[in-house]
Amino acid sequence: MKACVLYSGGKDSSLIGVTLQRLGFDVELCTVNFGVYDSFIPASLSAKALGFTHKVIQLDFSILDKACNMIIEDGFPNGGIKFLHENVVEEVAGKFDIVADGTRRDDRTPKLNKNQIRSLEDRKDVQYINLDSFGFKTIKMITSNLFEVSHERSNKDNNSDYEVEIRTLIDDKGGDSSGIFPEHYQTRVIGYK
Amino acid sequence: MKACVLYSGGKDSSLIGVTLQRLGFDVELCTVNFGVYDSFIPASLSAKALGFTHKVIQLDFSILDKACNMIIEDGFPNGGIKFLHENVVEEVAGKFDIVADGTRRDDRTPKLNKNQIRSLEDRKDVQYINLDSFGFKTIKMITSNLFEVSHERSNKDNNSDYEVEIRTLIDDKGGDSSGIFPEHYQTRVIGYK
Repeated sequence: MKACVLYSGGKDSSLIGVTLQRLGFDVELCTVNFGVYDSFIPASLSAKALGFTHKVIQLDFSILDKACNMIIEDGFPNGGIKFLHENVVEEVAGKFDIVADGTRRDDRTPKLNKNQIRSLEDRKDVQYINLDSFGFKTIKMITSNLFEVSHERSNKDNNSDYEVEIRTLIDDKGGDSSGIFPEHYQTRVIGYK
Repeated sequence: MKACVLYSGGKDSSLIGVTLQRLGFDVELCTVNFGVYDSFIPASLSAKALGFTHKVIQLDFSILDKACNMIIEDGFPNGGIKFLHENVVEEVAGKFDIVADGTRRDDRTPKLNKNQIRSLEDRKDVQYINLDSFGFKTIKMITSNLFEVSHERSNKDNNSDYEVEIRTLIDDKGGDSSGIFPEHYQTRVIGYK
């Protein structure tokens, strides 16, 4: 049971990785990259700290480019990030039999709804898994029991969220990513408790 | 992290029990009973075979009674079973901080939808967990790797589904449960692989 878990180094994607491993899956933590910035390094360190194999999956620049154009036009990130995540899942579903991500029951975006999941599984002959079993409070409780985390002001080099390459490309295009993405704190898993 | 898992001895409720245990929860497998028939015995054997604590939770007969009246009136079981499960979760949520069941992403009934889950968690100050993370194929794959099962024609003494007490009470009321519940085969977990 080999499974690709889309991985950012955060608590949610770490939890789905650990859950599947403990249920008997052969888990590969996978971080996608669009060739704009080596944003996968923090995720690779988290994966190593948890004892997992980590893989970088290079995807086509055009997906990130289109997402960034949407975000610049919208003036806010939700639509572009949703587009990006849906395309990432589609692409990765073409490469693995089982694909998982750390989206949660209470998440709004980016997140596949039930119809999108059914369509994905049918079209791509893939099994898709996420964290829909759990609510926000439960995930907070489980992850704080399982993981040591670092808690830092977010920057380009301490997280592997989509945001890092999106911000880089928006700024490269002459946009102002800091006006679109508010400053925030970033939690990264750095080991087991 | 003590969690009550509503438990029938089947593969789905066994899977959620094992999942939570492997994530660090102190799991009690709980089977509800309405005083009509000792239908909890097969579940207690499955729980023992998996090394879990098993608990029988006695609930008010009136819940089962109302469900059976609905089923007799409808001529089919879905509405009554949905009513029963929703009431069981409500009752058990008043007794535990964390309640889980084995309902799956692809299940239709009995199953709490997202709004019901939010309402339950808020009203009862409880955390609710199910198998929504996984689709049918994935659960089949995981459980067939994890569990030894028995596979028998369903009868009153080889399973602990709601159906057993429902059928008993419908027949006690002079109804014909065999006309409402089609004969089927029953899978019960009898140990780990």
